Amino acid sequence: AQSGTGQLQEQKKGLLIAVSASVDKIISHFGAARNLVQKAQLGDSRLSPDVGHLVLTTLCPALHALVADGLKPFRKDLITGQRRSSPWSVVEASVKPGSSARSLGTLYGQVSRLALLRSSRSRFHAFILGLLNTKQLELWFSSLQEDAGLLSLLYLPTGFFSLARGGCPSLSTELLLLLQPLSVLTFHLDLLFEHHHHLPLGLP
Amino acid sequence: AQSGTGQLQEQKKGLLIAVSASVDKIISHFGAARNLVQKAQLGDSRLSPDVGHLVLTTLCPALHALVADGLKPFRKDLITGQRRSSPWSVVEASVKPGSSARSLGTLYGQVSRLALLRSSRSRFHAFILGLLNTKQLELWFSSLQEDAGLLSLLYLPTGFFSLARGGCPSLSTELLLLLQPLSVLTFHLDLLFEHHHHLPLGLP
Repeated sequence: AQSGTGQLQEQKKGLLIAVSASVDKIISHFGAARNLVQKAQLGDSRLSPDVGHLVLTTLCPALHALVADGLKPFRKDLITGQRRSSPWSVVEASVKPGSSARSLGTLYGQVSRLALLRSSRSRFHAFILGLLNTKQLELWFSSLQEDAGLLSLLYLPTGFFSLARGGCPSLSTELLLLLQPLSVLTFHLDLLFEHHHHLPLGLP
Repeated sequence: AQSGTGQLQEQKKGLLIAVSASVDKIISHFGAARNLVQKAQLGDSRLSPDVGHLVLTTLCPALHALVADGLKPFRKDLITGQRRSSPWSVVEASVKPGSSARSLGTLYGQVSRLALLRSSRSRFHAFILGLLNTKQLELWFSSLQEDAGLLSLLYLPTGFFSLARGGCPSLSTELLLLLQPLSVLTFHLDLLFEHHHHLPLGLP
């Protein structure tokens, strides 16, 4: 059992390492700026498309893997009996009015109305871009982590967020620490960047 | 001349002390929160109207005084010959496309379209609320500080921003350091808070 737990922890650390590597790349993209205005220009996907590519090819997949980890494949649904789960359905479930911050609900509404985003993966990516724009990445992960009822509904006990909530709180602390530097940067990312640049990421 | 310079510096320090006192009050408002979600709820003016009052009665006047300091009373205008200057006209002049970040221009557009805000002072206040919502307070002050041409057009050489740009760069550094803690907090302030709560602040 011990070595099983060890293996599990190693696998979760692997998920965090991918996030960390991506954050490092993004921070170094901003390294050349001499002041806050130049920094803001480097975070604008229209002036600096590189930042859009960087976020979509490194950070989005790393966070998608994290949110997908240990997700139960289906959720009971009143109408259809059951619905397939995905990181985007985690977003949907996490922004119920009252349980989380109103600003997260506003962003969720904005992304849901983007008819050009057809796959649930591209919606999840757009939500991450929006969290960067509004400097709410930590807030969303923190609100997910706080919602014990939701986590037990959506995740297996071996999932990253279940473990972070239960036996391994350091996972949660470490994730928030990794994301913190991104909140200092100003992003102005086109939520439809992936669609406009025809990036081949839009798997279902 | 020395004592004149000394007096001038004392007066500028007074402006910063008012900002500092206001930031301290705002931070202590968030002190009771145990996690980021509770923090976000304390920053939401609908759930916690106190935060709106606090920002409008302490931070907005302190920043208004700072931006008004040493402002030339009039600006040359192609059509009317001259136009009266105010902190709101500083905002207008500061968000020219290309010179500043696109996200600041977006916020400026949003505030200008709020027809219920009748005085230029209440527009300036709403812009400050929007900067808090989008965590761009430092960015806007930094972009103003970077624009030497604009500063010499709008301000007398004895104004806070002229001095911060010229003989006294520590003023600028200190201002940005004072504002920094506010960027870590999540605000969701109603841009029409002042109007909805009939606060008697709306002087022209």
